[in-house]
Amino acid sequence: MTPSGKCYGHGHAHPASYAASLEGVDFEKMWRELAPVGRYDATGGYRRYAYTPAELECRAWFREQAVQRGLDVETDRNGNMWAWWGDPSAGGAIATGSHLDSVPDGGAYDGPLGVVSAFAAIDLLRANGFTPSRPIAVAAFAEEEGARFGIACLGSRLLAGAITPEAARALKDDDGVTFADAMSAAGFDPDGIGEDNERLSRISAYVELHIEQGRAQIDMDAPVAVGTSIWPHGRWRMEFTGRADHAGTTRLDDRADPMLTYANTVLAARKKARLAGAVATVGRIACEPNGTNAIPSRVRAWLDARATELSALDETLDGLKEATLARAERDGTEVSFTQESYSPEVIFDADLRQRVSRAVGSPMELSTGAGHDAGVLSARMPTAMLFVRNPTGISHAPNEFAHMDDCITGAHALADALKELAT
Amino acid sequence: MTPSGKCYGHGHAHPASYAASLEGVDFEKMWRELAPVGRYDATGGYRRYAYTPAELECRAWFREQAVQRGLDVETDRNGNMWAWWGDPSAGGAIATGSHLDSVPDGGAYDGPLGVVSAFAAIDLLRANGFTPSRPIAVAAFAEEEGARFGIACLGSRLLAGAITPEAARALKDDDGVTFADAMSAAGFDPDGIGEDNERLSRISAYVELHIEQGRAQIDMDAPVAVGTSIWPHGRWRMEFTGRADHAGTTRLDDRADPMLTYANTVLAARKKARLAGAVATVGRIACEPNGTNAIPSRVRAWLDARATELSALDETLDGLKEATLARAERDGTEVSFTQESYSPEVIFDADLRQRVSRAVGSPMELSTGAGHDAGVLSARMPTAMLFVRNPTGISHAPNEFAHMDDCITGAHALADALKELAT
Repeated sequence: MTPSGKCYGHGHAHPASYAASLEGVDFEKMWRELAPVGRYDATGGYRRYAYTPAELECRAWFREQAVQRGLDVETDRNGNMWAWWGDPSAGGAIATGSHLDSVPDGGAYDGPLGVVSAFAAIDLLRANGFTPSRPIAVAAFAEEEGARFGIACLGSRLLAGAITPEAARALKDDDGVTFADAMSAAGFDPDGIGEDNERLSRISAYVELHIEQGRAQIDMDAPVAVGTSIWPHGRWRMEFTGRADHAGTTRLDDRADPMLTYANTVLAARKKARLAGAVATVGRIACEPNGTNAIPSRVRAWLDARATELSALDETLDGLKEATLARAERDGTEVSFTQESYSPEVIFDADLRQRVSRAVGSPMELSTGAGHDAGVLSARMPTAMLFVRNPTGISHAPNEFAHMDDCITGAHALADALKELAT
Repeated sequence: MTPSGKCYGHGHAHPASYAASLEGVDFEKMWRELAPVGRYDATGGYRRYAYTPAELECRAWFREQAVQRGLDVETDRNGNMWAWWGDPSAGGAIATGSHLDSVPDGGAYDGPLGVVSAFAAIDLLRANGFTPSRPIAVAAFAEEEGARFGIACLGSRLLAGAITPEAARALKDDDGVTFADAMSAAGFDPDGIGEDNERLSRISAYVELHIEQGRAQIDMDAPVAVGTSIWPHGRWRMEFTGRADHAGTTRLDDRADPMLTYANTVLAARKKARLAGAVATVGRIACEPNGTNAIPSRVRAWLDARATELSALDETLDGLKEATLARAERDGTEVSFTQESYSPEVIFDADLRQRVSRAVGSPMELSTGAGHDAGVLSARMPTAMLFVRNPTGISHAPNEFAHMDDCITGAHALADALKELAT
């Protein structure tokens, strides 16, 4: 099933030899079943936040897929789901998968494409009579987007010991519900969370397939690409505190309006990022009391910044803090920056990447500004990534897209990678 | 009960001759009963939004105060409450009162002080054996702050025919609930709203007592002041539309980020207002999808602008729109400004103001940047205002305050004004 000379790197359609091998693998059916879950009709986007009903429905879908395939399914202490082909205790497993949660009004592909493709890859391998010599596991990691509790890749971070259980349990969503309470309410045990070396020791490598979140594969004309690295990136919660007062009767000179300081920070973030060769975004804000005729008492906002080099990221932040503090003094407001996450560059394991590249016959390589569980797990095991072309180039929004042809090509590529690694 | 030579204008304490006359008037008891309703413990502020349970509780409190005093209580077609001392159909009534709703996390005094003082003034007049020669009515107007449906003084605007019933019924709150549905859900009939000439014709004047919302009375050392005018003011809903995308993988040049345009507008509003001698505030914002790692697709925000002269208000808006459109072009975003309200200057009726001033013996006069039902009603009848000193100078925030001494002095002043007008 691995015809020599094939190449996913170029062209739109998957190789003709693969069309036949889709018999018995209903990729589109899996996709159709998952499509309505957590979809918000008004925007066409998804709202699958960790431990909410929509996300629990995604978990039920995962369980059903595993059961249909005769895979043993389990949820680990950190809320990550696993479906096993083979005996987990045998060791040396090859894991694949992604996540099922979404950003607010996110697209259909970011996360689910990796999980659907993992099940499809197993179907393909079985349809071709392949018997793995080591276990293969499909994973769905919890709260990858950090959309509810603010920390991206929370499930894999807990698993890998990259965040303490205490810190995780205390995280709060916008309604003040703690991560611990949200887990409990959904029927999980928050006392059990934390580093899970026993589970990590069973797995020898993790390969994650993901929709591309930019335009590089459009430019390269590549339906599938192999990841080389994840940019350094971080998130900061910014708090601007002033004094609430009446919007009509308070003289400009008597005001301490944190919205002014915030606004200046948004513009400064763009400017500093441009100068440093980084990207910086303020996409989330909460204003108090948020009344038309009241000067705000407090503005909270979140900064997302990324760069190809850690030094550029630091330069952006240092410059931004300096500009913000100067403006706050002028506005009579107070400002704090709290680092919620900070991830240095991840370079995927060279040997694993080479094996995956060779298996999928793709010379196209991609460095990405997006964070992934494969990045977090790279601290504990060799990890690699495959990307599927996104013809809109848009991500974290409803018009994120992938052509079914490219999705199927991606599933084949993943199957080839798993075959190479599990032989 | 109107000792000659008294003056509320100066000094902190109310005249000694008034302390005695408080017997039988439990101002503080009324205050204590109303204090917990709709109070939000986390901020210490009030959330009494039109037709919500908290505001309905305020209405029940109003009804109880009326019943305890043997006043006939009714709710008009527009949801405004009235308590009558005397026969409404006699005509020529003197109305007083204010409102019971609040801005988000507002103070205790803005609105309720005028209603509590109105009941206290009736108690004072009765305790002193006064019999009015014309009816006196205590009013509590609905949705004065516009905190839920965006239009300030909605109850008095409807009564006075300053907004059409169709436009009012279609207004929506942040959850998309229409004003009509909110009224229905609270047991009121939205089909009946609109101009009420029959009710207006019964009333010959309206005097509203209100907490001061700035620092003028601190500077004047005046516990009570008489209003001269309300500044021209307006509200605009601003919509900034861009394109949602991934915060990490989208090149800065490929972005259409509406948060940038918004931020520039916030800073420009302050600058243009300063240049024009106006005030401008952006205190309310809603961002979509509001995710840390997503470039926003849309930012909606509300501008509140006021000035002593209409020309300064227009100058502020014109300059702001120009600056915003220029920036939007640069950001690749779209912007719209929708005027939600626009009120030219209100100059309170000269004759009524003179009679009230003489009655309360106060030479202190005040022009205010805050809108009031007395401003809306001035188009249909003579109106006047009394202000009670606010030692923090802060309003629309939890630390809005008035000393009980000043409140009692205010109630006496209102009683004197009502006595003068209803004799």
